[in-house]
Formats: sequence, C-alpha cells, structure tokens
Amino acid sequence: MDNRTVFNALGKILFLLAFTMLVPLLVAYYYREPLVPFIVSFSITLISGLLLMRFKGREDWQQKEALAIVALSWLAAAIYGAIPFLFEQISFIDAVFETMSGFTSTGSSILVDIESHTRSLLFWRSFTAWLGGMGIIVLFIAVLPKLGVAGRQLFRAEAPGPTEDKLKPRIRETARILWTLYVFISALEVVALVFGGMSLYDALNHTFACMACGGFSTYNAGIEAFHSPVIEFILTFFMFVAGANFALYYRIIRVNKVVLFRDEEFRAYSFFILGFTGLLTLVLFSDMGFSPFNSFRYAIFQITSIMTATGFASTDFNLWKDSAKILVFSVMFIGGCAGSTGGGMKVVRFLLMLKYARRELFKFVHPRLVRPIRFNSKAVPDDILQSILSFVVLYIGVFVVGTVLLTLLGVDIISSVTASITTLGNIGPGFNIVGPMANFESVPPLGKIILIGNMWVGRLEVYTVLVLFTREFWHS
Amino acid sequence: MDNRTVFNALGKILFLLAFTMLVPLLVAYYYREPLVPFIVSFSITLISGLLLMRFKGREDWQQKEALAIVALSWLAAAIYGAIPFLFEQISFIDAVFETMSGFTSTGSSILVDIESHTRSLLFWRSFTAWLGGMGIIVLFIAVLPKLGVAGRQLFRAEAPGPTEDKLKPRIRETARILWTLYVFISALEVVALVFGGMSLYDALNHTFACMACGGFSTYNAGIEAFHSPVIEFILTFFMFVAGANFALYYRIIRVNKVVLFRDEEFRAYSFFILGFTGLLTLVLFSDMGFSPFNSFRYAIFQITSIMTATGFASTDFNLWKDSAKILVFSVMFIGGCAGSTGGGMKVVRFLLMLKYARRELFKFVHPRLVRPIRFNSKAVPDDILQSILSFVVLYIGVFVVGTVLLTLLGVDIISSVTASITTLGNIGPGFNIVGPMANFESVPPLGKIILIGNMWVGRLEVYTVLVLFTREFWHS
Ligand SMILES: [K+]
Ligand SMILES: [K+]
Repeated sequence: MDNRTVFNALGKILFLLAFTMLVPLLVAYYYREPLVPFIVSFSITLISGLLLMRFKGREDWQQKEALAIVALSWLAAAIYGAIPFLFEQISFIDAVFETMSGFTSTGSSILVDIESHTRSLLFWRSFTAWLGGMGIIVLFIAVLPKLGVAGRQLFRAEAPGPTEDKLKPRIRETARILWTLYVFISALEVVALVFGGMSLYDALNHTFACMACGGFSTYNAGIEAFHSPVIEFILTFFMFVAGANFALYYRIIRVNKVVLFRDEEFRAYSFFILGFTGLLTLVLFSDMGFSPFNSFRYAIFQITSIMTATGFASTDFNLWKDSAKILVFSVMFIGGCAGSTGGGMKVVRFLLMLKYARRELFKFVHPRLVRPIRFNSKAVPDDILQSILSFVVLYIGVFVVGTVLLTLLGVDIISSVTASITTLGNIGPGFNIVGPMANFESVPPLGKIILIGNMWVGRLEVYTVLVLFTREFWHS
Repeated sequence: MDNRTVFNALGKILFLLAFTMLVPLLVAYYYREPLVPFIVSFSITLISGLLLMRFKGREDWQQKEALAIVALSWLAAAIYGAIPFLFEQISFIDAVFETMSGFTSTGSSILVDIESHTRSLLFWRSFTAWLGGMGIIVLFIAVLPKLGVAGRQLFRAEAPGPTEDKLKPRIRETARILWTLYVFISALEVVALVFGGMSLYDALNHTFACMACGGFSTYNAGIEAFHSPVIEFILTFFMFVAGANFALYYRIIRVNKVVLFRDEEFRAYSFFILGFTGLLTLVLFSDMGFSPFNSFRYAIFQITSIMTATGFASTDFNLWKDSAKILVFSVMFIGGCAGSTGGGMKVVRFLLMLKYARRELFKFVHPRLVRPIRFNSKAVPDDILQSILSFVVLYIGVFVVGTVLLTLLGVDIISSVTASITTLGNIGPGFNIVGPMANFESVPPLGKIILIGNMWVGRLEVYTVLVLFTREFWHS
C-alpha cells in the first residue's frame, strides 16, 4: 500500500469537508451566534487538508488504498467535524461520538439538553447527517475532478448494500445523479414540512435528518414535540422514500414509468413495513389500550423510522410493553434497501439469506436437484450469496462483541444489546438507558468508543473497516 | 413417501420404547410406589407399537422416509413417555413438555416442586434424558436387527453435529460402540458421585442427567442442594467429558494414545470453556465480590454446564449481575462438540463459521487469491461450509421466531430470549421467569407448545424437523 496516495486523497477530502463548514457559519451569522467555532474548525480542516495534499500520490489506486481512503476519510470527518462541538462544553469523546453519529446518519446523541445548544451547532449536527447520508465519498466523486477508475473503487467501498453501479457507466455521472435526486427530494420535503406547520429552520433540520435516515431532532422530545399527526405522516412518507433504492427513482424519471413494484427488494421492503405496522397496530391496540387511530399512527411512524434506520421517535416507545418493543427491535435487523440512505443489514441481504436457508432445506430433501436462487428473476451467483452470508456472520459478530463488551463495562443487558445494534445499524435510539427520550451520555467512555466503532463499521458495511484490522491488509 | 414404511418403523421404535418403561417400574417396586403409571404407559406404548408394526413397510427407505421416521419417533417418544406424568396431577401439555425436555436432554422443567413427586417418576424423567442423550435412534439401530443402509440414513438424521460416521463402516457396530462407551463412562460417574457423597439413587439420577447433558436434578435447588464443591467438580469433569466427541474416546481406546488435543474441535472446545471460565471468574470476583475460590468454583461449573448444554445450576445465576450473566448467555450459542451428547450449535460449526467470515475478509483484500478453509489440516469442501452457514441461519431464525412469539404472548423479553435459546439449544435454564431456580410452569400454554417445538427442532439439528414443514417434502 502506498501511504502517500492515501494521505493525498485524505487531504482532498478534508479540503472539501472544510467548505461544508461554511454553511453552519452562515447560520451562525444569521442568528447572531458565535462565529468562532466554525471559523476555527474550517481553518484547521482546510490547513490539514492542504498539508496532506502535499503528499504526491499515484493515480491508479489499488483495492487496499481505496479501502484505506474510504475508511480513514470517515474517521477523519468524525474527528474534524467534532471541533465545533468542543466550544459548547462537550468533551472530545462525546464530540466525536456525536459527529460520527451525524456523518454515519445514526442519530444516537450524547446531548443531554439538545435545546440548550446554539442553532448553528444543531444545524451543523443535522447537516453532517445529510452529507453523510448520501455519502461523503459520493459527494467527493461528484464534485472533485478527474478520478476515473479509482472513483469506482471508492464508490464500491462506501456503497450502501450490494448494488451494482449500473445507473451510468461513468461513476462520476452516477454520483452527480444521486446527489441531484437527493437535493431535489430534500427540497420537496422542506416545502412539505413548512406546509405541515414547521418553521423553516425546523423543516431544514428535520429534512436533513430524515432524507439521510439520520434521526437527529432539534428538540429534546424529538418528533413528539410537534404533537402533529400531519407532520408525522409527512415524515413517515419521506423516511419511506429515503429508505428505498435511489436508483429506482432515477429510473422512474428516466423511463417515466412506475417500475417500483417490479423490484423485488422494494416489494419486500413495503411488505415488511406494512406487515410489522399491522402487527404493531394490533399490539398497541390490544396490549396497550391505545385508540385505533393512535395505534396505527404510532405503529407506522415507529416501524418506518426504525426499519429504515432513521431513528426518529414520535413517542417514548421505551415505555411500551415488551410485546410492542420486540417488534420495534426485530425490524432493527432488517434495515433499508440497498442504494438508499437507510441503515441496517439491508432488505436485499435479509431476503437472500431467507432464500438461501430455504434452498438448503430443499437440498436436504432433494440432494441431487439443483435449484438456483433467483432475485428479480435472475439467478444469483454463488459468490454473491456467500459474501452476503459472511456479511451477516461478521455483522452479527460485531453486534455480539459490542454487546458483550458494553455489558462487561457495567451497562445492563437490554441497553447493551440495543445500543450495539442501534449504532451498528446506524439507527439511533435503543431501549432503557439509551431509549428514544434518553441519550448516550451515561454510557462509560470506553463504551462510547466501542459504539463509535460500531457506527463506523456499520456505515461502511463491515468489510471496508474490518479489513483494516486483518494481518493481510498490512503485509503483502 | 411410503406412509406404511414410516408407520412400521415408528411401531418398532415404540415397541422398544415400551420396554424402557420397565426400568422405572422396577424403581417403583423397590420404593413401594404406585406401579400403575408405568404398567399403563408400558401397555399403551407396547400395543401402539404392535399395531403400527402391522403396516407392511419396504426395506429400502428413501431420504424422506428416514427423515419422517426420525422426526416422528421423537415426537412419539415425547407423547408416549408423558403418560406416567399424567398420574401425578400434571396437565397433558406440561407432561409432554417435561418428556420432550427429557428425551431431548434439555432439562427445562415445568415441575413446581420437584421433591413432591415420586422417586420412580423422577427416575423416569432422568432416564428419558439418558436414553435421548445418546439417541433413541442410535439405540434402536444398536438393538434391533437388520437395518443395513437404511440405518445409516436414520443415523445421519439424528446425529449430533456434522460428523462423519467413520468409526466403523457398519452403522450398527458404530451404534453399539457408542452405547457401550456411554454405559461405561456413566458407570464410572455413578461410582465417582457415590464416593463424592451422593446416595446411589441421586448418583444414578444425576449421572443420567449429566452424561446426556440433560440437566434434570431430583432437588428443587438443583446441584446447590448438595453444598459440595467436590460433587460440583466431579460433575464438571463428566459434563466436560459428555460434551466432547465420543469418537475421540473410541480412538483413545482403540489406538491407545491420547489424541484428544490433535483434534481441532476439542482444542477449541477446551479453549472456549477455559477462556469463558477465566473471564467469568474475574467478573464474579470483581463485580460480585465472591471469594477467589468461589469465583472459580461457580465459574467453571456454570460455564461448563451451559456451554455443553447440560444446564445444571450450582447457584442461582439469575441473581448475578448482567456482566456475569452475559457470559453465561454467550456460551449458549456455542454448544458441545459434534458427536457428543451436548447441545447448542456445536463447536465445529461455530469454528467453521468464524473461519468462513475470516476468509471472506481475506477475499475482500485479495479478490483473486484462493485460500481454502482447513479443519484438522484438511480442506473443508464448499458444500459443507454452505450447509453449515445455512444451518446457522435457520437455527438463529427459529430462535428469533420463538423469541418474538413468546414476547407477543406476554412473556418479558429477557425470559423470551433465554427460553427460546435454552430450549432450542437443549440447554435447560434461562433467565428471569425461566431462571435456574424457577421453572417453565408460568409460560402460557401456547408458549409451551412453541418451546416443545424448539426442543424437538434443536435436538434433531433443525433440518430433520424443519423439512417436514416444507412443500417439497410432501409433494414430489
Ligand atoms: K439513523
Ligand atoms: K440440557
């Protein structure tokens, strides 16, 4: 691996990142809040970027370099992006936690009293989620010139889910199309939320959090603060949109035909959301005594929010009975679609895993018959299946190790289990001490570092980060 | 599938099962307890067996018939074996639960006051575990004449773990060797326990429960009732022995050489037990304030008991802190060795799963290099790996579905999670309402049926039972 190449690319990404910090600077100026935090973070990030860019890198990156660049960019973004938080009495670990949670669009927060912070800082917090939602690297590819083949490698290492980058043969065009769509749908959401009764500031913040499947709110009570079913339904709709594959929207615009339900993953995604919503509505109605309207209202919001890994809460579901909580917990393991901003294991993986297990049962009865696994009417190659299964094994492995370590640090089991999966799946809230109306402040510092790792590993879909910890990566 | 063949074989198994009921009849006679329960159950089982044997079956069974015979034998054993329980004010579902728990050597109990029951019934309860531990079918193959190739298919469908039946080319000889070893080691344990201070009755019962990795005790307080570190260490030793592959012992006797540590699974098995014991000792000492001796004493007993899926408790570990409980919980997912009487997913599967995930990480860095996965120095074929991964997917799937259903029935999450895994892994106790000093009586009836299913599915290693619920099995 050529270190200089990695440093050079990291420098370019920091250079770009610095300029995103000018946006909250404008917000601070508008609200007459201190400008210093953003001027300082802008300067430090810019200078670091320029210094790193002085390393002379090669143009033809290899797999290892691409992986290192992507993994380290996200770590760097979480560290440099944390600078503004340090100006508001937040410790370094907490600030990195909050920023990693932002960029990875997790939405887990260590802020004890969100509303006590400046509007510009909260804006930056939501903005990191929005930037990270579609991908820092994708942005980088879209904006910076001349990347060629190298860009494709980067793109793959950051891509959410096992998608083929088939939108456009040229990766830069793909990145631009994705970002254009993202900005366009976000604009629609801002308008919808303002019509739904939000202030422009709230609408912007919640759109950032929603379109990125991020989940940060500007209120301590989260979405419950609005007491508005209309706003909840608008958010539900856009969470659902953000959790589906953006390539499908592109095709709708291009082909001008609604092909959504021809896509097997989209069908399964809709089916899971509707199915779990139905179940949860029943449970909330029968076990919790909610009215039919409220049962449905809370069920569809919470299932969509958790399954897409947005993590908004429209009510404190930590107070629900276990029969309701287990349904919320279950969808944490499914996630959004490949090519979406959603988190989790992704619907396509979940589906292929089920199909695989189903086929093995078939093979047990008919050992000599060959039956390929089909997805969208095409046979899925065996190596794709195998890499999906090992993804699941690694994913569950990281989840379990995270859980055990947290519990050994003294966190109770339910909090540990849900904190581990909610950060790994980039979801946001868990149960108990990390419940939707609580925060991650009370997790011990070592535990926070583990959870920062979980968010990082989860957002880059396990492999990209985990390979950095293998012997083979460093020795050739 | 030829139903008559299945009925005929089931009849033979019931015929054999009937005679095992004469053993508790002798115990009842010795203790001057009612003979009726065992006379009734003997008669009903014998007559059912004879009636079913009137079906004329073919000799050359196919895969489907073998699977149906094995799966249904175990179900039938749980139902016919339940008859004696009905005479002591136990409901039908509870009696089937207790008997399925016995034969599958799970050790989960619905008995509220164990000590209030007759000695003969408790003896029968322990005896079912011992019979089921080495395998009803293996016993059947060993005892009944003329099975030939058909026996091998049966053997595979019941075999614990992905073993090759390579002990002896003839399956019947293998079955006899296994049972002989089993009886021999059991006899050693009875002697050891009597020397350790147990009565002969207790020694027999606890040997049955221990050698089968069963876990039933004749006392409400379980092993704690003896207040004896000596007995605990004797049991720990024999649990460890029972949780390892019996083929290894055969080889030691045959080759007269200690080849245990040449076996990769045995090494990993020892490593996991020692590793988790070390960790738990530390946690009990530092978080719970136990003395160093007691920390080690409880740690090695509980880790060995839960990992081998015996399920004995030498103390109420449900009262431990979460940091200690999570370690006990973790080993529930590992299990004993293939070819042992232990439960769980089995060490070899766990190991191969880790190796597989490790290899995929390697492939991610070096996509073009081929690196086979080795086990005991031999390359593991890809189809074995794939069937192990899908086993894990199905196993976890059954565990999750069981958990969710129990929670929806109103059981709290921790009890649901641990009840589901402890029955699926044939372990015995869980946490909370199904903790080691509690019992499964308070689980709702539908929940008990789910758990009966879990024990059945788990003991026959998922496939053999699950295929019965696929369309392909019934239509050809
Ligand atoms: K999120
Ligand atoms: K057991």
